[in-house]
Amino acid sequence: MIKVGIVGGTGYTGVELLRLLSQHPDAELTMITSRKEAGTPVADLYPSLRGFVDLAFSDTATADLTRCDVVFYATPHGVAMADAPRMTAAGVRIIDLAADFRLQDPALFERWYKLPHTCPDLLAEAAYGLPELNRDAIAKARIVANPGCYPTTMQLGFAPLLKGGFVDAAHLIADCKSGVSGAGRKADLGIAFSESSDNFKAYGVTGHRHHPETVERLRGLSADPVGLIFTPHLVPMIRGMHSTLYARLKPAALGLDVQALYESAYRDEPFVDVMPPGAHPDTRSTRASNVLRIAVHRPDGPDGDTVVLLVVQDNLVKGASGQAVQCMNLMFGLAETTGLRQVPVLP
Amino acid sequence: MIKVGIVGGTGYTGVELLRLLSQHPDAELTMITSRKEAGTPVADLYPSLRGFVDLAFSDTATADLTRCDVVFYATPHGVAMADAPRMTAAGVRIIDLAADFRLQDPALFERWYKLPHTCPDLLAEAAYGLPELNRDAIAKARIVANPGCYPTTMQLGFAPLLKGGFVDAAHLIADCKSGVSGAGRKADLGIAFSESSDNFKAYGVTGHRHHPETVERLRGLSADPVGLIFTPHLVPMIRGMHSTLYARLKPAALGLDVQALYESAYRDEPFVDVMPPGAHPDTRSTRASNVLRIAVHRPDGPDGDTVVLLVVQDNLVKGASGQAVQCMNLMFGLAETTGLRQVPVLP
Amino acid sequence: MIKVGIVGGTGYTGVELLRLLSQHPDAELTMITSRKEAGTPVADLYPSLRGFVDLAFSDTATADLTRCDVVFYATPHGVAMADAPRMTAAGVRIIDLAADFRLQDPALFERWYKLPHTCPDLLAEAAYGLPELNRDAIAKARIVANPGCYPTTMQLGFAPLLKGGFVDAAHLIADCKSGVSGAGRKADLGIAFSESSDNFKAYGVTGHRHHPETVERLRGLSADPVGLIFTPHLVPMIRGMHSTLYARLKPAALGLDVQALYESAYRDEPFVDVMPPGAHPDTRSTRASNVLRIAVHRPDGPDGDTVVLLVVQDNLVKGASGQAVQCMNLMFGLAETTGLRQVPVLP
Amino acid sequence: MIKVGIVGGTGYTGVELLRLLSQHPDAELTMITSRKEAGTPVADLYPSLRGFVDLAFSDTATADLTRCDVVFYATPHGVAMADAPRMTAAGVRIIDLAADFRLQDPALFERWYKLPHTCPDLLAEAAYGLPELNRDAIAKARIVANPGCYPTTMQLGFAPLLKGGFVDAAHLIADCKSGVSGAGRKADLGIAFSESSDNFKAYGVTGHRHHPETVERLRGLSADPVGLIFTPHLVPMIRGMHSTLYARLKPAALGLDVQALYESAYRDEPFVDVMPPGAHPDTRSTRASNVLRIAVHRPDGPDGDTVVLLVVQDNLVKGASGQAVQCMNLMFGLAETTGLRQVPVLP
Repeated sequence: MIKVGIVGGTGYTGVELLRLLSQHPDAELTMITSRKEAGTPVADLYPSLRGFVDLAFSDTATADLTRCDVVFYATPHGVAMADAPRMTAAGVRIIDLAADFRLQDPALFERWYKLPHTCPDLLAEAAYGLPELNRDAIAKARIVANPGCYPTTMQLGFAPLLKGGFVDAAHLIADCKSGVSGAGRKADLGIAFSESSDNFKAYGVTGHRHHPETVERLRGLSADPVGLIFTPHLVPMIRGMHSTLYARLKPAALGLDVQALYESAYRDEPFVDVMPPGAHPDTRSTRASNVLRIAVHRPDGPDGDTVVLLVVQDNLVKGASGQAVQCMNLMFGLAETTGLRQVPVLP
Repeated sequence: MIKVGIVGGTGYTGVELLRLLSQHPDAELTMITSRKEAGTPVADLYPSLRGFVDLAFSDTATADLTRCDVVFYATPHGVAMADAPRMTAAGVRIIDLAADFRLQDPALFERWYKLPHTCPDLLAEAAYGLPELNRDAIAKARIVANPGCYPTTMQLGFAPLLKGGFVDAAHLIADCKSGVSGAGRKADLGIAFSESSDNFKAYGVTGHRHHPETVERLRGLSADPVGLIFTPHLVPMIRGMHSTLYARLKPAALGLDVQALYESAYRDEPFVDVMPPGAHPDTRSTRASNVLRIAVHRPDGPDGDTVVLLVVQDNLVKGASGQAVQCMNLMFGLAETTGLRQVPVLP
Repeated sequence: MIKVGIVGGTGYTGVELLRLLSQHPDAELTMITSRKEAGTPVADLYPSLRGFVDLAFSDTATADLTRCDVVFYATPHGVAMADAPRMTAAGVRIIDLAADFRLQDPALFERWYKLPHTCPDLLAEAAYGLPELNRDAIAKARIVANPGCYPTTMQLGFAPLLKGGFVDAAHLIADCKSGVSGAGRKADLGIAFSESSDNFKAYGVTGHRHHPETVERLRGLSADPVGLIFTPHLVPMIRGMHSTLYARLKPAALGLDVQALYESAYRDEPFVDVMPPGAHPDTRSTRASNVLRIAVHRPDGPDGDTVVLLVVQDNLVKGASGQAVQCMNLMFGLAETTGLRQVPVLP
Repeated sequence: MIKVGIVGGTGYTGVELLRLLSQHPDAELTMITSRKEAGTPVADLYPSLRGFVDLAFSDTATADLTRCDVVFYATPHGVAMADAPRMTAAGVRIIDLAADFRLQDPALFERWYKLPHTCPDLLAEAAYGLPELNRDAIAKARIVANPGCYPTTMQLGFAPLLKGGFVDAAHLIADCKSGVSGAGRKADLGIAFSESSDNFKAYGVTGHRHHPETVERLRGLSADPVGLIFTPHLVPMIRGMHSTLYARLKPAALGLDVQALYESAYRDEPFVDVMPPGAHPDTRSTRASNVLRIAVHRPDGPDGDTVVLLVVQDNLVKGASGQAVQCMNLMFGLAETTGLRQVPVLP
């Protein structure tokens, strides 16, 4: 059994980790920490876990996480990198659901997160935790940076086109929509029910942290320079993410069978589902499961050169905690789908 | 492996059965029928089941369901009783999620469902499928009548008070609230998004089919005459049911420790969770799981004689398909929780 | 033109006052204050008011509200009573949307609001602002206590039955459901979208401030002792309140025509709409309007002695700001419906 | 007073017309027809209109609409063109909220609506009812084709850029999101609450009727060839539309002050509100009002050549019935804002 610790288990990615790990056949929940809730039984905070999780929150300051084989950081940015040197020295592996190890360029990290990076050496060795694009590195890593939710959809969406050099990589557009849980579990006016329900809006058009993360990773997939317009929107739903991606085929690629390209690219991936031609996947078809679905469209038009990709996932599962468990499975030599075969909940 | 058939697998109780049974360790989905969707792969209708259910819908008219050990009827009222004589003769057990076998009085059935009962002899032997109150009969039954969603909450809520004769059974009040999925999967203006979201209303105050069902069963629990005011309401949420129950203690019972009564009554029940004193369980704490939670309150007041019970469940699981699987487990000698240990999905 | 001031205009009752008053033909918005937003144009905080409200927020500490004829307090509890002596001395009338002047008993106020009442003499002269039950007092008042949202539905619902002495006043039950905006505009985890949408729960069963307010007023309507069980619930909708009220007819009143009683009681009320027999009014039928609708039911049952009332309103209009404007109209001798004839917004 | 008739007043655009016209100072509701609801008082179908609309539905087959000065067709496609010759001959003006007179090319109409156009001569004289771009023609028209909801946002969004020839008109992208009421008031599984709430999806990527309508009109604004990728999505909200528009500036236009362009273009428009730089307007800021808001963005990027426009409106008001009343005002020489100054309802 893998001894698992969770730091900051009170947020949505934390409770989702608990849902998944409490039923993982090879994981044993060993320790869950929280600054505010130390001593509180986890199931008091989350009655949904009554009967499934018997632990109480340990105090973050005093908990001995080195008893764990792996620790998930479901914390604000900056916590994981503060712990990482000590934990890795003790032989504990780390999966960070925050951004500390996502951006390979420390200067970029500091610009966007307003913190200097405290362990650039560990950053250099950390693996970016998107299994479909980085499986081998994850399997060997001591530190895994779990990707952002939006970046997961954009990378898996654009990857086949960029790898093949088929599109104008300098003018990608990602019009993305997220459920409100993506903003986290917090007291915040902007995500109050009466502010965000029966309503729709864009946000962060002037700059969003998932933009540099995505661009950095897309550059690794493309021989051409990459430019990305990224427009996130807030949808009045709890879970779910829908990214509508636009790319223009190069003239030489107008004859490309894009559907076949995607089916081939993801044929062996257990968690990427390429839909049949003409499909419009809805977010609920992934609710509470680790699957990400992609539909490929190529609308009529004067040029017919635009590919439209519809990408859906549950932002808390494949977009966060499920992907983190998927990485854990890889890191410990388990079958990648272990503990992740939940059927989507519909309706 | 239990060979399982589902008749009418296109509605919400059908797809929920598929979610549960596709991962049940001792059940094998053998046949799913639909009049309208014969030939369609199940996963085409429900993309959420892609990779989990490989069957196509069989034609209801021609499917040989006698190959099954048990058949779930997730159909309109009247279908199961038409099939029941043939199926039971062939040794197939039946779990009906509709109302054909719920009311023990055939005249009452005809009055409320506008159909004469076609097999009153089988009705007489059918077991009412509420395991917590009728476990032994279910285990031995050839035909199980899965309870209505509202009746499940009212019976499990009122049972300890009625069994002990502690309350004025003639003046029970059940103010119940259901998510919209309780109305089924159908094209109906009243449950259109733009009609039922951002809105709340009562319905059926002048008469609802779950009233006679509940009264008939409560009578079996009470030595006193039973009277019930039942007011159902429609809540703009997909899943979830919250029944707020009111009963007045008899003068002799004013000293009763109601909390202790409930904790004792349900101590050994895996799917009934009596909450700590003062709790206000929310419906989402049961989302997608088979648990029903009860909180006991006794508000201050001039008499202090009123007990207020807050009962929550997922109407599609404990209120329908999960309870049906729980019954199947009993009928086939399995542990009652087999395949039903899903953690509630929160948020 | 009535010169109108609003203190604390940043909450939901504040913005609703602005919506109503910016189009009131006899009112002139003169001053709006806010501690936090001093200097900010109102329309910057609420883009919905662009082109309708040109004022900026004044600083609460320095604004000279004595220039106004009437001031609405859309503030936390305690603010209006602190200002009231000074304002009334200056000849300014006050309508308090908080609770400072709702409870006539200062000891009760202190118990529930944890504040000593600072001007019990003014409390004694304040009028309770429910026009349908207290019209004359409001018209003459210097200080009006705008009722709570729940109490408005409970009082208008129960009044005809209590006034006539027809029911067992000691055992009233009010099972009430409110949209989330009733909790106000604030950063609070409990009303975050991901916490309160697709969810339903009771709250405050162990005690709610609207209980003593309602009981105090119901006592004024009833010759018999009054007892009330009050169970509030939170509905995942923005606006709207539905109170389901239960009362048992006295044996001598079993022959009462309850429908006729209500039609007669409210025949001349412009904002109380008694629905036809058998109706199930939905909350949206009052959305953004000042109307309150009541449907009268009397379910079959062993005794047939229970009256069920369905009462709906928009909690921010008739339950708060609209009612306050209705009081203002009365206080200044205007037709009661002036500026309050908005058609409900449906869908 | 303008005598107004409404054909097909039972749908959402019909009830919205009733809300607006029942309070219009210069309009008199004279006749409302419905095939199904003939004889039913309008307020029985829509309790929100109790006290505001006293008419009953007339039978569409027998109603004498020639008594009206203007008739609104809130009907399925095909009804208005069947009536148009007779009505115009009788001197009655027509505002069609369906598509019969939207597409100027009858062949295009037949292709997309599967109906031959029955009065191409009247089609030729009909005015397209987008006042901001076609005011003079509307004022003189006998027949006005009220625009589709999506086309309104796309035309008002792209117009200033296209008119000036500043962008690559051949590669416009419109990623549009609509509330569910846009699908109309009907019994349809796809828009059932349990299907469309807590969910998000694209639809019609393979072809949508608002695409040819928009392209035809954009061509009239652009000297260059027009190409448009249009991706509609369904948002779980009742009202509201958010169109996120992308256009690439021509190299010669990289220095353009786009914000100033828009402020100048719409300076005198009462119903188009250009937001301050950096704004992210939400749909609710237009709820139940006739205003459309536009925010202009120009994200950083390798080229910095992409303009992102955020356009919001209430799909039932500026996107349908409000715009129709705006046209009526123009047609009858009234101030364009008459009866259309409702303050948006927020929250």
